[in-house]
Parts: sequence; structure tokens; C-alpha cells
Amino acid sequence: MRKYKILLVIGDGLGDRPVTSLGGMTPLQYARKPNIDKLLKTSIVGLMDPISPGVIPGSDTSHLAIFGLDPYKYYRGRGAFEALGAGAQLKHGDVAFRGNFATVDNNMIVKDRRAGRKLDEGQALVDELNQKIGTIDDVKVSFYKGTEHRVAVVLSGDSLSDKVGDTDPHEVGKRVKESEPIDGSHEAKRTSSVLNKLTEAMYKVLNESEINKERVKKGELPANIVLVRGAASYVKLPKLSDYAGLRGATVAATALIKGICKELGMNVVTPPGATGGIDTDYDSKANTAIDFLKSDDYDLVFLHIKATDAASHDGKIQEKVKAIEKIDYVIGKILDAVGDDMIIALTGDHSTPVEKKEHAGDPVPIFIHVPYPISYDSVEDFNEIDAKKGSLKIRGLDILNLLLNYSQRAEKYGA
Amino acid sequence: MRKYKILLVIGDGLGDRPVTSLGGMTPLQYARKPNIDKLLKTSIVGLMDPISPGVIPGSDTSHLAIFGLDPYKYYRGRGAFEALGAGAQLKHGDVAFRGNFATVDNNMIVKDRRAGRKLDEGQALVDELNQKIGTIDDVKVSFYKGTEHRVAVVLSGDSLSDKVGDTDPHEVGKRVKESEPIDGSHEAKRTSSVLNKLTEAMYKVLNESEINKERVKKGELPANIVLVRGAASYVKLPKLSDYAGLRGATVAATALIKGICKELGMNVVTPPGATGGIDTDYDSKANTAIDFLKSDDYDLVFLHIKATDAASHDGKIQEKVKAIEKIDYVIGKILDAVGDDMIIALTGDHSTPVEKKEHAGDPVPIFIHVPYPISYDSVEDFNEIDAKKGSLKIRGLDILNLLLNYSQRAEKYGA
Repeated sequence: MRKYKILLVIGDGLGDRPVTSLGGMTPLQYARKPNIDKLLKTSIVGLMDPISPGVIPGSDTSHLAIFGLDPYKYYRGRGAFEALGAGAQLKHGDVAFRGNFATVDNNMIVKDRRAGRKLDEGQALVDELNQKIGTIDDVKVSFYKGTEHRVAVVLSGDSLSDKVGDTDPHEVGKRVKESEPIDGSHEAKRTSSVLNKLTEAMYKVLNESEINKERVKKGELPANIVLVRGAASYVKLPKLSDYAGLRGATVAATALIKGICKELGMNVVTPPGATGGIDTDYDSKANTAIDFLKSDDYDLVFLHIKATDAASHDGKIQEKVKAIEKIDYVIGKILDAVGDDMIIALTGDHSTPVEKKEHAGDPVPIFIHVPYPISYDSVEDFNEIDAKKGSLKIRGLDILNLLLNYSQRAEKYGA
Repeated sequence: MRKYKILLVIGDGLGDRPVTSLGGMTPLQYARKPNIDKLLKTSIVGLMDPISPGVIPGSDTSHLAIFGLDPYKYYRGRGAFEALGAGAQLKHGDVAFRGNFATVDNNMIVKDRRAGRKLDEGQALVDELNQKIGTIDDVKVSFYKGTEHRVAVVLSGDSLSDKVGDTDPHEVGKRVKESEPIDGSHEAKRTSSVLNKLTEAMYKVLNESEINKERVKKGELPANIVLVRGAASYVKLPKLSDYAGLRGATVAATALIKGICKELGMNVVTPPGATGGIDTDYDSKANTAIDFLKSDDYDLVFLHIKATDAASHDGKIQEKVKAIEKIDYVIGKILDAVGDDMIIALTGDHSTPVEKKEHAGDPVPIFIHVPYPISYDSVEDFNEIDAKKGSLKIRGLDILNLLLNYSQRAEKYGA
């Protein structure tokens, strides 16, 4: 039985709500999308709740679900996935924190939770921390620069726990907190003890850093502490090739998505000009996807477009419409190059209504094109309203199974 | 409140896809089914995913779900359910294997994984194994003949585990494998040790068997070993009367289905002439179902028709259409005899597209006729495409609850 290739396209934050300035249409309704329209005739269509109805997904939890991994099992908090996004290589049981470079006085009272918000020297400070701290009580401490003042802090070692409190007091004028164990376990006590020693060590390194002396000279606040919050143990993700038998390639520019796909064992490529923003190079992304689809090395090609979400968070309605039309353009370019004799699915990882500017728990439209005759749905336009007429009422966790079924790669469950 | 009787009809592998030689219609679309059409006017209708969207069900996992038992809880592998199908009485914790009569040389190198494929003496060899082996290290070993060269092997005793490797090397020219424990547990070590002693004992019994000496004389390969694979612990199924309050009767000819229904505590009957094939005696099955429906002893009558699946696996399009028309005929005959003043449900345990000849993960149409006014669906034909217009988008696990609800037998969950 012939196995089909799979192209999975995720428009980040694709779903939306009726927008007044679009005459009460959603961006998907408003956008011109001739290539998607054509695929729709040979597709099953419907609505998808990435987690479950009404639950507002993060991009991390949603992508886990879309790749068939239950986030309630694999997701212990943002810290671990932000660290992945920042380039960390995590081991099962590592505890990761979200951190901020901040400014404290010599009594450890927080003066500014973001060290003046302007921090060009973030990478240099992270490098200095990594060089000078190393291990504390046999626990390896690693720092990874995030965006702006953000930094991911990872503890690696035996007997660690994420049941520990933040050191971030979450308020200016308060003292840096002592982390406390949340449960009575040995592991939690050990982890909070390491964390408190780490606070002292970071202050020592950062306060004496030449970089901070320079900042003070320039009248800037020193970034002399990292406040941490949101401890999260990393639950090792299995490899997509092991649990689904799929050799996968990812085309993406967003750090978080790239981090997850790398952990899943996929080949992850950010093509030249791909930015993860609305200014991304769509041709470049399409070309890379085409190369992967033409290659014998991959069964699944995952194309992630962040522009839809970026426009939504910024409240840029026309940019979101344009990003959707660009997704259609990319799909058209791929169809021109490799044809439609494969499984093609398009959906979002969540809705980000452009007038709300934040993620919402609304369902997201989805279509799955199948190149041989099945019971197709009769849905004429791909948008939030028409998708209700389709037969799919699924959850994110169902997507991988549907892709495996229609690509004729699924294994029977039972006899 | 009056409780209604329930007739549940499963057409095995009923669901399908558009078929070229049927003018792009599915067999359900193409078939004449006047009795089903009539019931549809007083029914709720829709699509059912036996396990979950896209998952390809086996008949075993699907029937568990349809009878309200989560296969992810009750199903540990094919071995246990094949043994049930072969007539085994399993106890909770028994470990069952799928086995093949095979041929080995005196160095235990596999010469033929199916002992020449022709084995008329299977039952006699199974009887001899059962007589001569008995127990090994206090573990009772039982053999059950399956179809052709297949044999189910069941270990019964304390402290057994299904975390053990196969003895089947899955390749000709290789030595019979030593079974190895998959985890470090005492139970797994004990089970693999018993299994390895069993391999020696089987070889001794079979190689010295007069039956095999006779086969060799005739120039046939001796069936002098049973290669086993797919260890599966049996999780005891609860009784339908206990967990659903239903006294059930089953009309079926297929071993696997009969085995499951017996374990559920149902009265299982194979009427004269029922074959589990496309040549089955439909009148005989209808008459037995009518008798059960007329009896005061049963609340649920389950009628299983294998012919739809048999035709599908053979790729016989017209036979599948005919089998569907025969299901309609059987339903008509039952309606003539006992009327429609009961709950009548028809669905499949999975799709077996006749051009694919294998199970698929596509959803299956379902209707449930309710003899008193409820919010019926307006679906005019019972098939994969029109069912999309119905209100049901359910999973196999939902069926029993729907039957209990509409038959007025459900108990309130809560106060």
C-alpha cells in the first residue's frame, strides 16, 4: 500500500473572530486564498480545539498536542520550553526557570525588575555567568539568553524537583525571595537550597562584572541579578520517528517551535530571510519546504508561519490578512513545484483574535487534503464560520492520527 | 418509566470510501436499503470514530469500546483476545501469546515459519501438547487451535508478566529465540524462563509425535515447534449486566467477537448456517435475533454480521453491496416479526474500504432509532457522506451510554 508524504502547515494564531473593519468578516473570510479554495474540494474540513474546547493554548502546549503528545503529560511549565526555545539541550529531570536580568541594591532589594529594560549586553552577561558559576552542590547551572532582558536558567543533576518557589518577588522595592520547597520532599529542599546559593553566586558574578561597571558609568542600571520564576521539570519528549514512524523536517524561524521540533528529533531549518515576523521571506520558506518534500529522507514536512500571530498580537488587521494570503501563496508555490499528490493539512496552533491581541480558546479551522477519493466535506471557503459545516470536530491530539491514517502510515490498534 | 429493548447491529468493516466502479458512490450509498431508510426518519444519525479520529481500530479494540470498555484500559495486546476467540477461558493476569506451528531443524533453526502452510492435523497436535505438557514451574500451559497454522498459547499462574520477548525470530534461517525479560521485574524473568522451558518441551513433544512422523513420511514438513509472539496479559472484562445493567444476548459466528461477548457474560449463540463469511445464513441469524428479542430474558440483543468485512478484505465490491442489502433484509425481517417499538442501532466496528482491503481509521456512519419522539436528525440516506449532516459526532465509547439513555435504562450520574 502506497504511503503518502505529509505537508503540515501551521499558521500561528491563525484563528480569529469577526472584525468590524473587515465588514464583520474574519481575516480568513476576508483574505483571498485561491490555492486553499482549490484544495478544499478534496478535503475533510472542520474545527479543531488544540487542547480542548475553551482552553486557551500556548504555542508550546498546542504544538505538543498537534504532534500527538498530550501536554498534560509532557508539559510541566513554560520554563522548560522557553529554555528549549533559547537553545538549551535538556535532559529528562532537568529543572528550568524563566529568568529576568534585574537590578538590586546591596541589600538585595529589587530596584528594577528588568534592569532598565534596555540590555544590549545580555549575551555577554550570560556567557560570564556560564563561565564563572559552573556547578553548585554537584548541580550544573546553565544560562541561555532569551529575548530582551529574559534568560532561561537550567539546573541539571540528580534528585531535583520543580516543586520550589520563585526567587522573583514580582514587585519592585521588595527583597529577592528565598526559594522555598513547595512539598516536603528531599528533592524540593535540595533544589531550593541550590537556587538560593545560586542567587548569591549570580549577584557576586554580575555585580563585579566589568560589563555592569560600564553600565553604571554610562548612568544605566546594572543587570546584577537574575530573578527566576516558574520552575518546570523537563519531561523528555520521545522522537517522532519512534512513536509515529515519521521522518520529519521542520521549516520554522520561531525559537520555541524550533526547540520543540528539535527535541522531537526532526531536522529543523530556518531558511535565509525567515524571521518569525511579518517581514519573513515567504519564498525562502516555500523553497525549503519544496526541497524537503522532494527529498526521500522525509515523510512529514512541517511548515510553521509565525506572521499571522505576530500581526494578531500587534493588532494589525491588514497585516494578518496579508499573512494569510501569503500562506496561500506559499501553498500555491509548493503545489506548483511538487503537485498535490500528498496529504496537505492547514490549521493554526490557536486563535489570536486580532482585536483581542491575545490568544483565545476558540476553535481553529482545519482542512486535510487527501489525494485519493474519500468522503470529502462540502465546505466552500476555509474560515471559522464555514468550517462549522465540515465533519471534523477534533482536538489537537487527533491531528497526527488523522495524518497517519490518510497517508496510509497508521498501524492498526488491535486485530 | 418504561424500559425499551435494544437491538444493536454491527456490520463488521461497514464503513467505506467512494468506489470507482460504483460511480464514485460508497457501497452504503449504492446499496438498496428500504428498511434502514424507513428507520432513519425516527433516528439520530451521524459519524462514529470507534477509538478516536484517525486511529485504525481492530475488531477487538472497537468492540470493547462499543460495549463501553476503554480499550486503553482493557486491551494489552492481540494475544489475549485471539485466545478468547480460540475458545480460551482466561483469568485476570493470564499471559497469552499468538503462536504459529512451525518447522525447525535439530539445531532449532527455523526452516518454515508455518510448517509448510498446510496443516490439517492442527487440532490433534494441540490436543497432544495439552495432554503432555501440563505445567512448567507451577505455571499451567494451555494451547488453543486457531485458524490454519495458528495457535494461541496461554500461561496461567501467579506472578506472570507480559513484559517478555518473543521466541519467534520472525525470519527463516534463524534460531528460535530465547525469550528475554523486557523489564527487570521478577515476574518478567519468571515468565521468560517458563517460556524458554516451554520451547524445549514443545519441541520434544512435537518432534516425537506420531503425527509429525506421519507428515515426514508423506514428504511434508513436521510441525515440530510453536513460535510465540506478542505477549499480552489478560485484564478481566467486567460483566455487561454488572456495569450496564443489561442482560445481553449475542448472535455471531466470528470467534473473536464470540470470545469477547462471552467474557462480557452475554449469552452467545451461533445459529445454524451462520458462517462468519459472505455465505452466511441471514434468515437463521434474523430468526435467532427475533427469538432473543421476544424473550423476557434479554434487554440487549447484539447482532454481528461479518460478511461486510469479509467482502471488503477480499476486495469484492458487489459482495459488500449485497452484504449491506442483506443487513437491511435482516433488519426488515426483525421489524416484521417484533415491530420497531425498541431502540435499534446500526453501525460498523470500523471502516474496511473495499478498494483498500484493510481496516482504515475513517469514521463510520451510525444511526440510533428511538421509537418515541426526540429531536431526530433529518438525514435521508444512511451512508458516509449524508451521515455528516447528522448531529452525532461520537466515539465508540459513547454508544453504550446513548443506548442506555434512549432505552430509558441509564442511571443519573450525580444528584
